Amino acid sequence: MMAQTFKVAGMTCGHCVTSVTDSLSKLAGVEHVKVDLSDGVVTVRSKHHLAGPEVAKAIDDAGYELIAP
Amino acid sequence: MMAQTFKVAGMTCGHCVTSVTDSLSKLAGVEHVKVDLSDGVVTVRSKHHLAGPEVAKAIDDAGYELIAP
Repeated sequence: MMAQTFKVAGMTCGHCVTSVTDSLSKLAGVEHVKVDLSDGVVTVRSKHHLAGPEVAKAIDDAGYELIAP
Repeated sequence: MMAQTFKVAGMTCGHCVTSVTDSLSKLAGVEHVKVDLSDGVVTVRSKHHLAGPEVAKAIDDAGYELIAP
Protein backbone atom coordinates (compact mmCIF):
# COMPACT_ATOMS: atom_id res chain seq x y z
CA MET A 1 0.00 0.00 0.00
CA MET A 2 1.13 3.55 -0.62
CA ALA A 3 -0.01 7.11 -0.04
CA GLN A 4 0.08 10.05 -2.43
CA THR A 5 -0.88 13.65 -1.75
CA PHE A 6 -2.41 16.09 -4.19
CA LYS A 7 -3.19 19.80 -4.04
CA VAL A 8 -6.72 20.55 -5.24
CA ALA A 9 -8.24 23.94 -5.97
CA GLY A 10 -11.85 24.99 -5.54
CA MET A 11 -12.98 22.96 -2.54
CA THR A 12 -14.87 25.22 -0.15
CA CYS A 13 -17.21 23.10 1.96
CA GLY A 14 -18.11 19.64 3.15
CA HIS A 15 -20.06 18.96 -0.03
CA CYS A 16 -16.91 19.58 -2.05
CA VAL A 17 -15.00 17.18 0.19
CA THR A 18 -17.65 14.52 -0.40
CA SER A 19 -17.58 15.01 -4.17
CA VAL A 20 -13.80 14.72 -4.43
CA THR A 21 -13.68 11.80 -2.00
CA ASP A 22 -16.38 9.91 -3.89
CA SER A 23 -14.75 10.48 -7.26
CA LEU A 24 -11.26 9.41 -6.15
CA SER A 25 -12.63 6.43 -4.23
CA LYS A 26 -13.90 4.96 -7.49
CA LEU A 27 -10.41 4.67 -8.99
CA ALA A 28 -9.07 1.13 -9.11
CA GLY A 29 -6.88 0.29 -6.11
CA VAL A 30 -7.90 3.23 -3.95
CA GLU A 31 -8.48 2.24 -0.34
CA HIS A 32 -8.85 5.55 1.48
CA VAL A 33 -9.21 9.22 0.64
CA LYS A 34 -8.69 12.02 3.16
CA VAL A 35 -9.30 15.68 2.36
CA ASP A 36 -7.90 18.56 4.36
CA LEU A 37 -10.30 21.30 3.35
CA SER A 38 -8.40 24.22 4.86
CA ASP A 39 -5.19 23.31 3.02
CA GLY A 40 -6.79 21.88 -0.11
CA VAL A 41 -4.64 18.77 0.29
CA VAL A 42 -5.98 15.35 -0.63
CA THR A 43 -4.25 12.20 0.59
CA VAL A 44 -5.01 8.98 -1.23
CA ARG A 45 -4.00 5.56 0.06
CA SER A 46 -3.99 2.90 -2.65
CA LYS A 47 -2.72 -0.54 -3.52
CA HIS A 48 -0.52 0.80 -6.29
CA HIS A 49 0.79 4.10 -7.60
CA LEU A 50 -1.89 6.24 -9.23
CA ALA A 51 -1.01 7.98 -12.49
CA GLY A 52 -1.30 11.76 -12.46
CA PRO A 53 -3.70 12.00 -15.42
CA GLU A 54 -6.01 9.42 -13.84
CA VAL A 55 -6.13 11.43 -10.61
CA ALA A 56 -6.50 14.72 -12.47
CA LYS A 57 -9.48 13.34 -14.42
CA ALA A 58 -11.24 12.08 -11.28
CA ILE A 59 -10.82 15.47 -9.62
CA ASP A 60 -11.93 17.29 -12.76
CA ASP A 61 -14.98 15.02 -13.06
CA ALA A 62 -15.96 16.06 -9.53
CA GLY A 63 -15.78 19.71 -10.59
CA TYR A 64 -12.43 20.69 -9.11
CA GLU A 65 -8.87 21.13 -10.30
CA LEU A 66 -5.66 19.27 -9.53
CA ILE A 67 -3.07 22.03 -9.20
CA ALA A 68 -0.07 20.04 -7.91
CA PRO A 69 0.71 16.34 -7.95
CA MET B 1 -47.54 35.99 -4.91
CA MET B 2 -44.81 37.74 -2.99
CA ALA B 3 -41.07 37.77 -2.68
CA GLN B 4 -38.94 37.88 0.46
CA THR B 5 -35.16 38.10 0.73
CA PHE B 6 -32.98 36.59 3.40
CA LYS B 7 -29.31 36.85 4.22
CA VAL B 8 -27.73 33.44 4.77
CA ALA B 9 -24.27 32.67 6.17
CA GLY B 10 -22.01 29.77 5.28
CA MET B 11 -22.84 29.12 1.63
CA THR B 12 -19.61 28.72 -0.31
CA CYS B 13 -20.31 26.67 -3.43
CA GLY B 14 -22.91 25.34 -5.80
CA HIS B 15 -23.62 22.39 -3.54
CA CYS B 16 -24.53 24.82 -0.76
CA VAL B 17 -26.86 26.65 -3.14
CA THR B 18 -28.57 23.37 -4.02
CA SER B 19 -28.99 22.40 -0.36
CA VAL B 20 -30.55 25.70 0.64
CA THR B 21 -32.73 25.84 -2.48
CA ASP B 22 -34.00 22.30 -1.93
CA SER B 23 -34.77 22.91 1.74
CA LEU B 24 -36.65 26.18 1.17
CA SER B 25 -38.49 24.76 -1.84
CA LYS B 26 -40.16 22.21 0.45
CA LEU B 27 -41.93 24.89 2.51
CA ALA B 28 -45.64 25.19 1.82
CA GLY B 29 -46.45 27.90 -0.70
CA VAL B 30 -42.91 28.36 -2.02
CA GLU B 31 -42.81 28.69 -5.79
CA HIS B 32 -39.26 29.76 -6.55
CA VAL B 33 -35.95 30.09 -4.73
CA LYS B 34 -32.99 32.05 -6.06
CA VAL B 35 -29.62 32.16 -4.32
CA ASP B 36 -26.98 34.79 -4.96
CA LEU B 37 -23.91 32.97 -3.73
CA SER B 38 -21.51 35.92 -3.79
CA ASP B 39 -23.82 38.06 -1.65
CA GLY B 40 -25.33 35.26 0.44
CA VAL B 41 -28.77 36.57 -0.41
CA VAL B 42 -31.69 34.20 -0.93
CA THR B 43 -34.86 35.38 -2.64
CA VAL B 44 -37.98 33.30 -2.12
CA ARG B 45 -41.16 33.77 -4.14
CA SER B 46 -44.20 32.27 -2.46
CA LYS B 47 -47.97 32.31 -2.43
CA HIS B 48 -48.11 33.81 1.04
CA HIS B 49 -45.80 35.46 3.56
CA LEU B 50 -43.32 33.03 5.14
CA ALA B 51 -42.77 33.29 8.88
CA GLY B 52 -39.19 33.99 9.96
CA PRO B 53 -38.84 30.94 12.24
CA GLU B 54 -40.10 28.65 9.47
CA VAL B 55 -37.50 30.01 7.05
CA ALA B 56 -34.77 29.94 9.71
CA LYS B 57 -35.50 26.27 10.42
CA ALA B 58 -35.38 25.29 6.74
CA ILE B 59 -32.03 27.05 6.33
CA ASP B 60 -30.71 25.53 9.55
CA ASP B 61 -31.84 22.06 8.45
CA ALA B 62 -29.79 22.51 5.28
CA GLY B 63 -26.74 23.27 7.43
CA TYR B 64 -26.60 27.06 7.13
CA GLU B 65 -27.64 30.07 9.16
CA LEU B 66 -30.21 32.77 8.59
CA ILE B 67 -28.48 35.96 9.72
CA ALA B 68 -30.99 38.57 8.58
CA PRO B 69 -34.63 38.35 7.60
